[in-house]
Amino acid sequence: MTITITAFERSPDGGMGLARDTRVRWALEEAGLPYDVRYVSFQAMKEPAHLRLHPFGQIPTYEEGDLALFETGAIVFHIADRHAGLFPTDADARARAVMWMFAALNSVEPCILELVIARFQEGDRPWTPERLPLVKERIRQRLGQLATRLGDAEWLDGGFSAGDLMMVSVLLRARPSGMLDEFPSLAAYVARGEARPAYQRAFADQLEANTGVRPAG
Amino acid sequence: MTITITAFERSPDGGMGLARDTRVRWALEEAGLPYDVRYVSFQAMKEPAHLRLHPFGQIPTYEEGDLALFETGAIVFHIADRHAGLFPTDADARARAVMWMFAALNSVEPCILELVIARFQEGDRPWTPERLPLVKERIRQRLGQLATRLGDAEWLDGGFSAGDLMMVSVLLRARPSGMLDEFPSLAAYVARGEARPAYQRAFADQLEANTGVRPAG
Repeated sequence: MTITITAFERSPDGGMGLARDTRVRWALEEAGLPYDVRYVSFQAMKEPAHLRLHPFGQIPTYEEGDLALFETGAIVFHIADRHAGLFPTDADARARAVMWMFAALNSVEPCILELVIARFQEGDRPWTPERLPLVKERIRQRLGQLATRLGDAEWLDGGFSAGDLMMVSVLLRARPSGMLDEFPSLAAYVARGEARPAYQRAFADQLEANTGVRPAG
Repeated sequence: MTITITAFERSPDGGMGLARDTRVRWALEEAGLPYDVRYVSFQAMKEPAHLRLHPFGQIPTYEEGDLALFETGAIVFHIADRHAGLFPTDADARARAVMWMFAALNSVEPCILELVIARFQEGDRPWTPERLPLVKERIRQRLGQLATRLGDAEWLDGGFSAGDLMMVSVLLRARPSGMLDEFPSLAAYVARGEARPAYQRAFADQLEANTGVRPAG
């Protein structure tokens, strides 16, 4: 059954891999699944045809036969649930991989996104220079806790899983601000994720779609 | 196997059901599972014994034999995955129920929590009165999109599922600010969730733990 995802026609990050379709592309590459991409403009994202697929008017979406999904976490879960490569086979270990997916999306990403919102939606407001340190301190606290838990392990719980895929993807959003590099063990963890061949292919595909250029290597 | 969760010794909301243990209690009640509760003080939450269970020093956690989980979404997923009552049996419908869980936690809760943070962590800052309308506008936009998708349906996708449990729980956090009531169809949706006997039992249990009083009825 053909899998079709949606992605930005022009990603706000210019193809640096921070748009959420990269997460889904990565999961599909880890699972070895071919897929088609339908590119959507900002205008089309707010139109009824797209809103039927995604009530919040965003990307990515996922279509496979009669099944239509939005929400990156749910799409990655679905891929991991039905194909080998992203969840451990042991039931308890699988529950913990799901745990790290939710942790990435509900306990780590929101504070990182708060900084993105402060910069891009409130960047011109008079309070922003004074407020940014508070926002950054909340990120610092959370990343510190995560670094403590990771310790010197390679991945969050045994082998690489969909939980790592999601956590690495979320942490990538803390790199442009320089905050990821304040935590060398997390920066190294993210680099391990980026070094995976499946990530490399996903990144190259979304970069090429955004710039017409394929990275070397 | 005995299930043990953790909850606040004294919940910041005084037992109004907004602490995250209520979500887990609700799921356990829907599944008909007995459980024990270990109450944790704010101080104990930051100590090594609890941090081993929950790296971010929060509640709830979930222990069942050798399995230890944190992150409400993951705990509710685990309960729904292994017991009847919270996921539909059809595979595609189950994928959509998971989708609504992630949507609640990654696309709806963060903007609502932004308001909680603005009020309680930045309430005394000079910019807050001028900034609150922006934060509220972001909530309004998201809840409007959700109301459009819900339409006049009873639940988000067919019968009640773990997706509704999570969405209702998240929307409850928008009630104290009055923002939930700006969307009558969402307020009615939340009320349907609250009317479920399993929710009633969960709410009564956490209220009694926080106040020593059991609600009538």
